[in-house]
Amino acid sequence: MEKLTIVKVGGKIVEETDSLSQLLQDFKSISGPKILVHGGGRSATAMAAKLGIETQMVDGRRITDKPMLEVVTMVYGGLVNKNIVAGLQSKGCNACGFTGADLSLITSAKRPVKEVDYGYVGDVVDVNTSELRILIGEGVTPVIAPLTHDGKGQLLNTNADTMATELAIDLAKFYAVNLVFCFEKDGVLANPDDDKSVIRDLDRDLYLQYKSEGVISEGMIPKLDNAFRALNSGVNMVLITNAKNLTKPSASGTLMRR
Amino acid sequence: MEKLTIVKVGGKIVEETDSLSQLLQDFKSISGPKILVHGGGRSATAMAAKLGIETQMVDGRRITDKPMLEVVTMVYGGLVNKNIVAGLQSKGCNACGFTGADLSLITSAKRPVKEVDYGYVGDVVDVNTSELRILIGEGVTPVIAPLTHDGKGQLLNTNADTMATELAIDLAKFYAVNLVFCFEKDGVLANPDDDKSVIRDLDRDLYLQYKSEGVISEGMIPKLDNAFRALNSGVNMVLITNAKNLTKPSASGTLMRR
Repeated sequence: MEKLTIVKVGGKIVEETDSLSQLLQDFKSISGPKILVHGGGRSATAMAAKLGIETQMVDGRRITDKPMLEVVTMVYGGLVNKNIVAGLQSKGCNACGFTGADLSLITSAKRPVKEVDYGYVGDVVDVNTSELRILIGEGVTPVIAPLTHDGKGQLLNTNADTMATELAIDLAKFYAVNLVFCFEKDGVLANPDDDKSVIRDLDRDLYLQYKSEGVISEGMIPKLDNAFRALNSGVNMVLITNAKNLTKPSASGTLMRR
Repeated sequence: MEKLTIVKVGGKIVEETDSLSQLLQDFKSISGPKILVHGGGRSATAMAAKLGIETQMVDGRRITDKPMLEVVTMVYGGLVNKNIVAGLQSKGCNACGFTGADLSLITSAKRPVKEVDYGYVGDVVDVNTSELRILIGEGVTPVIAPLTHDGKGQLLNTNADTMATELAIDLAKFYAVNLVFCFEKDGVLANPDDDKSVIRDLDRDLYLQYKSEGVISEGMIPKLDNAFRALNSGVNMVLITNAKNLTKPSASGTLMRR
């Protein structure tokens, strides 16, 4: 099967002009078909503040009431997505922006209210990549914003890591998928206070051991759970690395293989 | 050649939930391949006001400084576009949103400063529909926001009527294109004070006569200039009509034929 690289970038990297330009240059140099999935939470929080809308987070997840849904639709689907697309196009990469609503790429269900009412947050229920794969075959690079729809006209806010994972799982039926989570650290750390303590190779047993011992920091757990779910579902390889190491993925970061 | 309908809708129609839902229902019922090009100026003006950004218009065109470019990128590319896409998807229409930057659909050049500095406004220089046509062939309905890019990473604000016209001209090489401009009036009026005075058939000679006699209102002239340019460049038919007559186009509005 042909290789396909899915890169998820979040945080400051995509939201600051200089680091974004470097990231897009590095991303562009990845050979073969590729997809970029982005976040934009800091920009959404900043725009919400300008509009007098308070940002509330629970366990790192955004409470998305109606006004906040408008903000994330504007910021993720418009501001961040279109600037990335224009940036990639300027580098000769034929990018095309999508949300989960476009081509009905990702359908989700509004999260049921339990202890927390997350509002307009969607949990993925279906992935459809049939038209996306045609575009990829034409040399197009999809750039995907973390929004989905419920199929009944409602847009929903969906976590970008989860979207990257679900896309990777679906596309693993058609490609040898490498899933790369980029962030500001060099990888998964054995000691959160020591940036050099990157765990280079992580398998499921070691992960479960580290998790039970409390070695792995709280914030990494959803990312790693996503990673092992992807590997269990046919994804070839997951790498968690620093965005600045995107051009030399095998030389850095935390690698998880099937 | 296969028929392709390009509908441009602007104004209040796409920006109010009830009228948008009706419009999407009517649009969906158009047979064969179709494209929706939308505006969003009222929402952009409202969002700008919420952000304390003043809207300045010259001859009906928006002055687009850097903060205003952010607003239109968010509102046109995000809020309006993605809500239309989700709405069409809910009606079983496989919609996909685009700006001119996506797939490098429409490249433009920043308008030179003459008497007026329009800021980040782009005049169309190139149209590329090669990937778009593949998607149309797959049954996809493009939904296009009035933003373009300069190919060097800069997004630009471009008039939606102009974008619809340029797309129509390019696609006329491959399809029998009908271009429909929807707005709040029933058509081009011979007497602006009489909504019943719709000019049903308009040819170039009659248009030039009406224009010189001052019969046709100032605001209609750019739309009609676009219309006749489209007809001169291979577009089959242009209709200017009320959005509520979208399902019965031949029974209403102002019709211009090649």
